[in-house]
Amino acid sequence: MGAAAHSELLNTGPLAIVAGDGDLPRLLAEECQRNDRAYIVVLFAGFAPDWAVGLPCLKAEFEKPARMFKALHKGGFTCVTFAGAMQRPHLRPLKFDWKFLKLAPTLLPAMKSGDDVTLRTITAIFESEGMQVVGAHDVLETLLAPSGVQTVAKLSKMDWADIKRGFDIAQASGRLDVGQGAVVAQGICLAVESIQGTDAMLRFVAETGDAYRLDPKAARGVLCKVPKPGQDWRVDLPSIGPATVEAAARAGLAGVAVQAGGVLVLGLEQTIAKADELGLFLVGVGRDDTPPAEAES
Amino acid sequence: MGAAAHSELLNTGPLAIVAGDGDLPRLLAEECQRNDRAYIVVLFAGFAPDWAVGLPCLKAEFEKPARMFKALHKGGFTCVTFAGAMQRPHLRPLKFDWKFLKLAPTLLPAMKSGDDVTLRTITAIFESEGMQVVGAHDVLETLLAPSGVQTVAKLSKMDWADIKRGFDIAQASGRLDVGQGAVVAQGICLAVESIQGTDAMLRFVAETGDAYRLDPKAARGVLCKVPKPGQDWRVDLPSIGPATVEAAARAGLAGVAVQAGGVLVLGLEQTIAKADELGLFLVGVGRDDTPPAEAES
Repeated sequence: MGAAAHSELLNTGPLAIVAGDGDLPRLLAEECQRNDRAYIVVLFAGFAPDWAVGLPCLKAEFEKPARMFKALHKGGFTCVTFAGAMQRPHLRPLKFDWKFLKLAPTLLPAMKSGDDVTLRTITAIFESEGMQVVGAHDVLETLLAPSGVQTVAKLSKMDWADIKRGFDIAQASGRLDVGQGAVVAQGICLAVESIQGTDAMLRFVAETGDAYRLDPKAARGVLCKVPKPGQDWRVDLPSIGPATVEAAARAGLAGVAVQAGGVLVLGLEQTIAKADELGLFLVGVGRDDTPPAEAES
Repeated sequence: MGAAAHSELLNTGPLAIVAGDGDLPRLLAEECQRNDRAYIVVLFAGFAPDWAVGLPCLKAEFEKPARMFKALHKGGFTCVTFAGAMQRPHLRPLKFDWKFLKLAPTLLPAMKSGDDVTLRTITAIFESEGMQVVGAHDVLETLLAPSGVQTVAKLSKMDWADIKRGFDIAQASGRLDVGQGAVVAQGICLAVESIQGTDAMLRFVAETGDAYRLDPKAARGVLCKVPKPGQDWRVDLPSIGPATVEAAARAGLAGVAVQAGGVLVLGLEQTIAKADELGLFLVGVGRDDTPPAEAES
């Protein structure tokens, strides 16, 4: 199914934005405002980001899904998107409502698996409530990473080799539902992303990676981000933004490589500007891309 | 080939112990002393551990293999073992001798791959010099991890599930020549070992892992160590010891699981004693082991 055909079938009705960390939920709320699309920001467990002040919000508790779905149905929200990372909650069993208890036999085991299983289960729960789950990039198409080198900084042959190895490692890790990223420098894997996410991985590289770049003048390494093979692209696509580029710079890396069309860039212009400011490259790599012949050696 | 037949074919002549970090080279030197086997400790690049003082040593430089092999041949050392982790050297090209220059076209690209490729190449170089490369466990058979639970602390069903997932992840990581270990708690992967090794991984878990154990009363997580699938078992078998158990305890883990017969335990008695002291479990898991029926739930 082509992208256009896919779009036509998408629910463009009132949108519930389940808000996690970072800029993504704000960007989606702004897109709804631009398009006069009705929306509500769903905030779980006391989460109250500054950007949401003054916007239509629904405070929700993990233990009380019945109340949340009632409010969403009443408001006519037939469409939902999950935006931004959310930590697994420390659940308070005494607060469980009847719907949570009904969902618990499915939901609790799923929460003990990786992110992917958890999110599939949560997606299925919203669908069983008659809501359509859409990806953030279905709401705001320009979020998906474009193909090609986006920055003033270009890539060496060794950078391209690091990207190939980093994509292999990140995909293998994704296949096991471990994470969506890896860092490779001069052929050596300096980190594999786990549940703590990209920022924690890059701090680890900043603290431990220096001794493992054999040639001080050669490639400084690449942060690679790819979606999990076979993952539901409506939820949990990996994302980057200006802060990711800053963290990559602090880790001493040469640049950031993402799968073109498979990673969200939260603020493409700002992300490219930050990369140019810091001298890093940013590249979107297609599935079948090979390093361009003109890569610097 | 059975273990006994394998042993008979092994070179038991004068042994060169190429010494890296940790206790392993010392344990092998002690074993040679016990058996009146001639040996020499090869120390690269100014490495001068306290335990080697007074023992027969050969100082070597990465850039000057010709000199080292000449000394080894002259001393009659027909057998070599690589013991303990060694960091990739920062090479000084101006010091390269003729043999290094001859080896460089093979060796330098290999050093830009993972550990496994590097070590295979170094092994081949020693073999081409007429030396037999043997594993540390060929010198000291009791190094290999035994099967079964070794400690007072036993395993819960969730610990066994964490071990299964940790082994899957560590093996996948090994297949890509990334590392030989992983940490899993309550089904969630908290870390995948990369070039920095087990201690760095466990520090990362100590610093970042707490928020990701959903149920504060459930399984605290397991350090899993396995050899790389298809790796040359004569070199770079993963190893643990009392310090590994201490680091696992600092990371808040419930225990350590190693592949029985596939991981070196440097000081089994001391390692078990340390685990018992800290309340951790230590288990050697066979390839086809399933959790015992009596596992606590």
